[in-house]
Amino acid sequence: MPFHSLADVRALLGRLPAPDATATAAAEARNGQLTKPPGALGRLEKLAIWMAGWQGTDKPRADQPQIAIFAGNHGVTAKGVSAFPAEVTAQMVANFAHGGAAINQLAKAFGAKLDVHALDLDRPTADFTEAPAMTEDELVAALRQGFQAVDPQSDLFVAGEMGIGNTTAAAAIATALYGGVGWAGRGTGVDDEGLRRKEAAVAAGLERHKALLGDPLEVLRSLGGREIAAMAGAILGARMARVPVILDGFIACAAAAVLEKAAPGALDHCIAGHQSAEGAHARLLEKLGKEPLLSLGLRLGEGSGAALAIGVVQGAVACHSGMATFAEAGVAAG
Amino acid sequence: MPFHSLADVRALLGRLPAPDATATAAAEARNGQLTKPPGALGRLEKLAIWMAGWQGTDKPRADQPQIAIFAGNHGVTAKGVSAFPAEVTAQMVANFAHGGAAINQLAKAFGAKLDVHALDLDRPTADFTEAPAMTEDELVAALRQGFQAVDPQSDLFVAGEMGIGNTTAAAAIATALYGGVGWAGRGTGVDDEGLRRKEAAVAAGLERHKALLGDPLEVLRSLGGREIAAMAGAILGARMARVPVILDGFIACAAAAVLEKAAPGALDHCIAGHQSAEGAHARLLEKLGKEPLLSLGLRLGEGSGAALAIGVVQGAVACHSGMATFAEAGVAAG
Repeated sequence: MPFHSLADVRALLGRLPAPDATATAAAEARNGQLTKPPGALGRLEKLAIWMAGWQGTDKPRADQPQIAIFAGNHGVTAKGVSAFPAEVTAQMVANFAHGGAAINQLAKAFGAKLDVHALDLDRPTADFTEAPAMTEDELVAALRQGFQAVDPQSDLFVAGEMGIGNTTAAAAIATALYGGVGWAGRGTGVDDEGLRRKEAAVAAGLERHKALLGDPLEVLRSLGGREIAAMAGAILGARMARVPVILDGFIACAAAAVLEKAAPGALDHCIAGHQSAEGAHARLLEKLGKEPLLSLGLRLGEGSGAALAIGVVQGAVACHSGMATFAEAGVAAG
Repeated sequence: MPFHSLADVRALLGRLPAPDATATAAAEARNGQLTKPPGALGRLEKLAIWMAGWQGTDKPRADQPQIAIFAGNHGVTAKGVSAFPAEVTAQMVANFAHGGAAINQLAKAFGAKLDVHALDLDRPTADFTEAPAMTEDELVAALRQGFQAVDPQSDLFVAGEMGIGNTTAAAAIATALYGGVGWAGRGTGVDDEGLRRKEAAVAAGLERHKALLGDPLEVLRSLGGREIAAMAGAILGARMARVPVILDGFIACAAAAVLEKAAPGALDHCIAGHQSAEGAHARLLEKLGKEPLLSLGLRLGEGSGAALAIGVVQGAVACHSGMATFAEAGVAAG
């Protein structure tokens, strides 16, 4: 059991491991000797060196990626914030189990192990406009379930989510962490009326819990959801195991942002897989200081954008770890 | 033998096959039934439908991609236009053969067949500032070699190149096709002096061959190179076999642009794999009306940016062809 209380979580956030500086330096040196003009692989070079640091080797790998999907239900759906009924969360979990969802196909395409964690779907979180979404025990349980979902043998990790109503929870978290307005978006496709209901729910939640919002973990507890907390726990678990993480869209980044606010640098082992079409994702990535690898207009969740980016990371480490050096190949170095 | 003369090539350009409208419509219908909110997979949805049209099936595939690399040498290197000596072309061909280059790793990562075609490396094209780069026979031979390199059984095709000096040839082609200035860039990394020599070579080539430049195939003959012509031939060959193509960087797009200028719509079976860091590539993509899938600062050539985009296309068709429909999965359609 990695932790029993929020105090344990706070303690973990105070002793996050750093990347391996020796491996980073060795990978940088190797990169300079590979048979290509300096810098010609662009961001792929930086990606491979970053992977090297977290994996502690000058020849990183990405052939054992893991995707963990967390599903949860949200009391705030009572406020009419989604285009889909709450039953769809459980229906999609069944679809994951039968291999029929987008994430199943992407996991197969990139050779990733896929685990699905349904978190108390029959017990939605409280409607955050009326009460804290979770008790402290519920929050800790969800964080722990995420933390324990990470396979430390994985060489790359993606946390994804499914939860009707969770763009509203994510918007509330982002508003609480960063202030301003306009964090609510269209989600799975609400109309103008639905968007106004989301905005109203976010405003009501912020007002109700304003005394708690100085503490990022209390933000997560009062406005989040089990799958959002589990994603935060998983990202923390990956950090403790030094497994690099690809962040998915708006909801995954809201979960991640809680960690970054609680402990700046907590996302140094994370890259942004993509910029989603959900309105405020670009703004959230900017707050996190993360430049997305892809920007293809996805807004599905399930970890799908990050899963697609696994291919880019696999390409990056394949080049770095597999290419010949100028000396090995007998090529003039320019 | 697909063609014997430029007249044969012109005839082919006049009877290019179209995508299969029935398959396109069937794929669009299928896309609307998959277990996701409408449009939630963004560009992946459009990609899969486009693949369906060219492959003539509502469930397209991308598990037999082919990458063909064409290598050629350029007389214009005598003008000091590259940071690398011309010998590097042959050295890199040997590196490809031994599996040591970036493209070898990317081909392996995405399960692509990789063929390398060295085109008369010991007979560089003429220095285009002094004479047409190729005779008509040389041009036709190079186009044909590219055309015949395409395996019609492939489900996706990438043409890549290696040729010290070929960003200068590509810049000359782009200038001839589209006018304006500033098409020359840093290539593999020339300094300011080198860049000025490239610009001067382009200007001299344009001036010398100005009488020919109204005809795109004559532009290719007088300013291009064997590997550039072979890429154009391969893109044409893929079209005749209805194999979809991912375009690589500036040089591959200059080759493709010759076809588009000669027969508007000739690149309808092509998508832009990436936007490279070579200065004028973004501008060339705009001229071609192609939005890149990736933009990661690559500027290596070898087909590397397009090869990386194979992963994105594989993800797109995996989702489209593998996902369950709402009816199959028993999920409420919103």
